[in-house]
Amino acid sequence: MAPLTRIGLAGLAVMGQNLALNIAEKGFPISIYNRSTVKVDETVQRAKAEGDLPVYGFKDPESFVKSIQAPRVIILLVKAGPPVDATIKSLVAHMEKGDCIVDGGNEWYENTERREKELAQQGLLYLGMGVSGGEEGARNGPSMMPGGSYEAFKYIEDILLRVAAQVDSGPCVTYIGKGGSGNFVKMVHNGIEYGDMQLIAEAYDVLKSVGKLSNEELHEVFSEWNKGELLSFLIEITADIFSIKDDKGEGHLVDKVLDKTGMKGTGKWTVQQAADLSIAAPTIAASLDSRFLSGLKEERVKAAEVFSSGVFGDSSIVVDKQKLIDDVRQALYASKICSYAQGMNLIRAKSVEQGWGLVLGELARIWKGGCIIRAIFLDRIKQAYDRNPDLANLLVDPEFAQEILDRQSGWRRVVCLAINSGISTPGMSSSLAYFDTYRRDRLPANLVQAQRDYFGAHTYERTDVPGSFHTEWFKLARQSKI
Amino acid sequence: MAPLTRIGLAGLAVMGQNLALNIAEKGFPISIYNRSTVKVDETVQRAKAEGDLPVYGFKDPESFVKSIQAPRVIILLVKAGPPVDATIKSLVAHMEKGDCIVDGGNEWYENTERREKELAQQGLLYLGMGVSGGEEGARNGPSMMPGGSYEAFKYIEDILLRVAAQVDSGPCVTYIGKGGSGNFVKMVHNGIEYGDMQLIAEAYDVLKSVGKLSNEELHEVFSEWNKGELLSFLIEITADIFSIKDDKGEGHLVDKVLDKTGMKGTGKWTVQQAADLSIAAPTIAASLDSRFLSGLKEERVKAAEVFSSGVFGDSSIVVDKQKLIDDVRQALYASKICSYAQGMNLIRAKSVEQGWGLVLGELARIWKGGCIIRAIFLDRIKQAYDRNPDLANLLVDPEFAQEILDRQSGWRRVVCLAINSGISTPGMSSSLAYFDTYRRDRLPANLVQAQRDYFGAHTYERTDVPGSFHTEWFKLARQSKI
Repeated sequence: MAPLTRIGLAGLAVMGQNLALNIAEKGFPISIYNRSTVKVDETVQRAKAEGDLPVYGFKDPESFVKSIQAPRVIILLVKAGPPVDATIKSLVAHMEKGDCIVDGGNEWYENTERREKELAQQGLLYLGMGVSGGEEGARNGPSMMPGGSYEAFKYIEDILLRVAAQVDSGPCVTYIGKGGSGNFVKMVHNGIEYGDMQLIAEAYDVLKSVGKLSNEELHEVFSEWNKGELLSFLIEITADIFSIKDDKGEGHLVDKVLDKTGMKGTGKWTVQQAADLSIAAPTIAASLDSRFLSGLKEERVKAAEVFSSGVFGDSSIVVDKQKLIDDVRQALYASKICSYAQGMNLIRAKSVEQGWGLVLGELARIWKGGCIIRAIFLDRIKQAYDRNPDLANLLVDPEFAQEILDRQSGWRRVVCLAINSGISTPGMSSSLAYFDTYRRDRLPANLVQAQRDYFGAHTYERTDVPGSFHTEWFKLARQSKI
Repeated sequence: MAPLTRIGLAGLAVMGQNLALNIAEKGFPISIYNRSTVKVDETVQRAKAEGDLPVYGFKDPESFVKSIQAPRVIILLVKAGPPVDATIKSLVAHMEKGDCIVDGGNEWYENTERREKELAQQGLLYLGMGVSGGEEGARNGPSMMPGGSYEAFKYIEDILLRVAAQVDSGPCVTYIGKGGSGNFVKMVHNGIEYGDMQLIAEAYDVLKSVGKLSNEELHEVFSEWNKGELLSFLIEITADIFSIKDDKGEGHLVDKVLDKTGMKGTGKWTVQQAADLSIAAPTIAASLDSRFLSGLKEERVKAAEVFSSGVFGDSSIVVDKQKLIDDVRQALYASKICSYAQGMNLIRAKSVEQGWGLVLGELARIWKGGCIIRAIFLDRIKQAYDRNPDLANLLVDPEFAQEILDRQSGWRRVVCLAINSGISTPGMSSSLAYFDTYRRDRLPANLVQAQRDYFGAHTYERTDVPGSFHTEWFKLARQSKI
């Protein structure tokens, strides 16, 4: 019989398999289990093939749990929601006081808090740990966001530090905070990821539809961008995508991919939480709406016919390609600052509401490697919060403010060019509207509040005297007409 | 002792008082009750003063309930949430099988469905009825959206038909549908109201900040607009607002109103429900975000300082005032079509999900009078759904499509002018992005889906062959580099 292992992992889909192999490779013998047992064999075989890694497969919950040294730690990587509850139920029957469960899925944070409480009654510890990086990240070093029991975190800290992506400033993992904070932070990370992807898609659209760039040129542009301020995983893979030829026919594969984007739920939750916490997050919302509208392919084809007589697009616009590329890069970067400002402010608002005490700069640090939004840009965000942990908004950090000032002309040119070409840039234009709203000391909100007081007696404040006021607008207006 | 009354009303804040007087005035003797009894006296006095209306005040739940003829109907107008539950509890103790409660507040639709089920166990009927129109509407004729028990609706139909606003096509009330549908429709009505108010505020901002129109000129412009396609309650009161002088100093009152907008929750729910149902509602979301950002007055003042060195605003832009006014009117109207398209599609999606069978054209009809969004425009929406009840989107109705085509040049000019003047028009620009996204047969969503398949193996569809595909993008990209 094998000696007891250090840790267990249940749920052997792509993410689970890869994370198990990663843990084993870092020197921690690991027990694995999956309800459908074929995945157990598959993973054990991969472990053999990838260097005889210490991975031990089990096909029933009891022998799986019993194979791990106490206090036991079991990471779950199963579908969020009821499957997590079912898996917990099957494992807990064999676990003992002091053992710990770590949910690595994209779980709704309140489910984690409910489970943490339920398991605490049985003396078990619980962590909800966001894991980002896709299959490649899971295998070679993801970014991990564990939240919940600090005691449980300390018990597996040595494993997490070794398994995480390693960057210049250390491993991409830190204890996030209490309760469901790890899941919440991962959720916002995904919302930001939606925003990044949408902004890149808009940059592509403008360059291709207005600038008439070929896929070869797009590959060059994104490769070039990946050497500068936009250096990031998503820009890198975008450059890659434009280089790939279609294996089923002529041309490039990207042109054959249907323009429908799927989604899994975290982007939706981000938008709903922003509304709940009174945080404006228009860039992230625009990326979600774009996914919704992309799904209406048949409706869009019909609508394109309805409006074919009035296709907009000023063909007289003469575009200087190099200038356009430069402007689009600036628009993309400035919009990205707005999107991250929204995401960070959402995290802070939730942290305040829940008393989590989250450290924004530290979050930017652990996103620097391993995860989908990893980027050189995150260094700047960390620095901004290092300079001022109470920064009200990334936009007003002196360095970001200057970067935006330097780019606003190009940004405005791109959005207007798109509008005059009939191309939508919902992410870039809502980012610009966010900036132009946030940086204005006087908005037309006075009119909205006057309207509210007119029809609903909701009262208003004044600019010159403190207090709350109500005016009989209707009466006064009738008098003034006499 | 007075004879039994026809109906009761509990909750005598502004809306409750006015609705009770309205019901009494239409010839239905009404019992009234309020927990704080001073409101009871106040309302009875108003009833006397306004023509000896048959309003009977009660100061304890039992005598209130017992004063109404069976089967009893009691309308509640108390704050949504726990106060409604508390009021129901205090009344139900004295009610009998077959009696009915009608909640007229802005309640979350699922609370209505819960209460309907709970009360059904005691043989009581329940309606959740959205009431719009503010205090003036409640007094003289609101728009009412009753949903829930059809039996209960039939029992008070005669009262509702008389109490509602009366327009050429009939009274502004209809049975909406089962369950919480009445509350849901009212919630979306409010979301649309947020959109209308924001779009008007942006029109005001562009005319004032770029066009340099005075309040007198703004009054003229909105008065003029109220004679045409924009004829509506909100445009009318906006014109009124610009006519009112400050009673505390020089100038117009609107300029002294602080630029902070309050809110009550229905706009937030609308945005969250849209996300839940995969409906893009960017115009409504932009109006909610604008309210959030308006609230950050101090932050905005500081941000304005940070960016003062780079204030945008091309002062060289020469504006033809009359042309600008005309363009802004077109932008406002076209944006409004987009906003209503979003709201109607949200209602339809919910109706399909819940099996409510809502009739969109009928909703447009009952909004024509009494409520805050009442407008001549709603006639066009009703006609569009009369022409085609299965219309996928208002944008592609032949008449609306033509109206948009006729206005798109002005619309694009206004948004670009605002962008180049550093003025944000989040509602108009997100409406335009919605239009430009919806009417495009090919979006850059192919890139986003390719990215998702690259890092998460989420698969993609192709434009040319059916099926689901996955590509090893990373491997192929590395090969192509060799």
